[in-house]
Amino acid sequence: MSKSYIRHFNANAIFHRIRIEPNVSQRDIVARTGIDKSVVSSIINQFSELGLVERNPVATSNKPGRPMEGLTISPESGLIVGVQIEADTIGYVAAALDGIPLCSRAQAFDGKLDGVADLVGRGVKEIVGECGRAGDTLGVGISLPGLLTDEGMLLHAPVLGWRGVPVVDMFSEALDAPVFAGNDGKAAAMAEYMFGECIDIKDFIYLFSGSGVGGALFLDGDIYRGASGLAGELGHIKVVPQGRYCSCGASGCLSPYLSEPGLAEEIGRLTGNRPTSFKDIMERADAKDEVVVGVLDNAGAVLGSAISSLVNIFNPPLVCLGGDMASAEPYLRPAVERALQRLAHPSMSVQTKVIFSQLSTVSPFLGGVALALDGVTGLDSPHVLP
Amino acid sequence: MSKSYIRHFNANAIFHRIRIEPNVSQRDIVARTGIDKSVVSSIINQFSELGLVERNPVATSNKPGRPMEGLTISPESGLIVGVQIEADTIGYVAAALDGIPLCSRAQAFDGKLDGVADLVGRGVKEIVGECGRAGDTLGVGISLPGLLTDEGMLLHAPVLGWRGVPVVDMFSEALDAPVFAGNDGKAAAMAEYMFGECIDIKDFIYLFSGSGVGGALFLDGDIYRGASGLAGELGHIKVVPQGRYCSCGASGCLSPYLSEPGLAEEIGRLTGNRPTSFKDIMERADAKDEVVVGVLDNAGAVLGSAISSLVNIFNPPLVCLGGDMASAEPYLRPAVERALQRLAHPSMSVQTKVIFSQLSTVSPFLGGVALALDGVTGLDSPHVLP
Repeated sequence: MSKSYIRHFNANAIFHRIRIEPNVSQRDIVARTGIDKSVVSSIINQFSELGLVERNPVATSNKPGRPMEGLTISPESGLIVGVQIEADTIGYVAAALDGIPLCSRAQAFDGKLDGVADLVGRGVKEIVGECGRAGDTLGVGISLPGLLTDEGMLLHAPVLGWRGVPVVDMFSEALDAPVFAGNDGKAAAMAEYMFGECIDIKDFIYLFSGSGVGGALFLDGDIYRGASGLAGELGHIKVVPQGRYCSCGASGCLSPYLSEPGLAEEIGRLTGNRPTSFKDIMERADAKDEVVVGVLDNAGAVLGSAISSLVNIFNPPLVCLGGDMASAEPYLRPAVERALQRLAHPSMSVQTKVIFSQLSTVSPFLGGVALALDGVTGLDSPHVLP
Repeated sequence: MSKSYIRHFNANAIFHRIRIEPNVSQRDIVARTGIDKSVVSSIINQFSELGLVERNPVATSNKPGRPMEGLTISPESGLIVGVQIEADTIGYVAAALDGIPLCSRAQAFDGKLDGVADLVGRGVKEIVGECGRAGDTLGVGISLPGLLTDEGMLLHAPVLGWRGVPVVDMFSEALDAPVFAGNDGKAAAMAEYMFGECIDIKDFIYLFSGSGVGGALFLDGDIYRGASGLAGELGHIKVVPQGRYCSCGASGCLSPYLSEPGLAEEIGRLTGNRPTSFKDIMERADAKDEVVVGVLDNAGAVLGSAISSLVNIFNPPLVCLGGDMASAEPYLRPAVERALQRLAHPSMSVQTKVIFSQLSTVSPFLGGVALALDGVTGLDSPHVLP
């Protein structure tokens, strides 16, 4: 394993240990993470020099010896900004270094590539001004709905129609802080790991649905990237031979059975009245529209089959479902559970917890914060999470 | 990352670097692996003290300075024995520490759990005697057709009918050497990484077919194990909703479309003449039996769909197909390629090489050798690869 990767990984693990357990001692960090004592000491010194971490005296027990020292994140040391670019909106959130959001806003967006860097540059300046907190902007994380390479190149974002955009370079020119860009699914999975229901869980599979279905593989404490950073396209698992057409160009993928456009299309075809949004779909389901409830149940069955494959492939302790799926939990969960019972290997499914996470709905734009925090606290990170 | 895991990983990486590049220098090992200089030095010292690695003076170039020192594996330092337990045979191979097989044999097996430890104990003694090489047996690797936990417990081996067998403890009592046990698919994948076409490739997906379909996820230079060591059951990816019944108890898995019993069943149903073995299936295909060729083409299409999902999930540089699939390459490859073209994401499939590997057919029982070698050269390894 390369030194730089191990250092990045260890630095992040130590930072988040301090974030999750304020006033943790250096000795407990060693015990909890298994990282070598001298490495923990060196990384904490570096955090301390950068002003990211503070050492505090802690009330000791009756035991004799050196007074205990507790470590905490310095929330005042600077800001992290998360940016989420979608087809029709750009979301901004400014957060303290412990990831706690200070303020957020969204602006309408025409989806045009031309001028987007300056637009985001102004938006970041405004959100930083709004939150009225002194200190440098330590990092800006930009979450994008598309495939990004390890080198910070956006290969393709279907909902935006962008192709081959060097996003890290482009946004870096318009921003006065280090830029970290990443795929929205992977960024949301990191947010779940840092702030959500997957906190401290080293292995989980993340799926989310919205205008498409995306995901991420969180393995051995980190996002798994594959040959060139594109791993985790879980919306394009094949679920039905010769099945529905998908925006990726293939057929039979999970995405057209579960995404908002896929569900709206089917409901429209069956009722003659196509829903205009996912909220519309939910309102009809809540009003006990049997067709809509049936379509969601079928989507749950297809999702459950895909999750069964993922259980058999990964033997994961946790599968986390976010985005629109989380809002539709009451309509999806029964069919998902039936499918798992029928299709996943019993030795493995008994070890897997399937949760519907509300994080992405309750606190939007945290994906960008997670991207930036990972970059800043990794100390030597590349500026991209594909 | 825990110290012990990193040490195991690094020790193996250094050992295999020396094995693959005889007379490599310590400096080049540092450059090639990215492992810290002091760690490389400490691990090589330990290998040297154990007699596993030798230091040799190497003819220097004209450059002044200290004479170069090349490192090689000490092939005479001891033996590694691989054991492969199947439904009707037990295979043995004795190999030098560089993994090169010295002799191999197979014995008929009634599949009974009762007495198998003593049977294998005698078999190992015989193969060690046959190869007429002095030196200790440094490790015995036992490859088993079933699900194993990280703790060395065989949960279930359907073809043997064994359940809940503490295999590492059981075989350790009958053998005078450290025992390393593992799932046959994962063991075969490690053999591909050490001796086959996946040599030195840090990320690949391995699938094999025989009496069932198994596999392994080789990610970031190691087998990925999941929550409890069961990850990699790629024969149980769901490929057809409400599809064929599978030995795992579910329906629609890849396995019944590609395993020898699944193919034989379908050919028997279509022709009234069920093949008795995979060899029989191949002979009929070679004799241009159109039904058999058609069944194999359909199996290739189903396999290609499953590989497309794996490409979209993992963005792997390599997918390696072994076992019976390798023998059937001419009949499977066209349909696999058509499916990939149609179903995998083009940005990813262009980065994935799909190969049919002959290793498992040409040099059987190397899975056990890989298990033992991983254990011995990991220096502090657990005695099980699930």
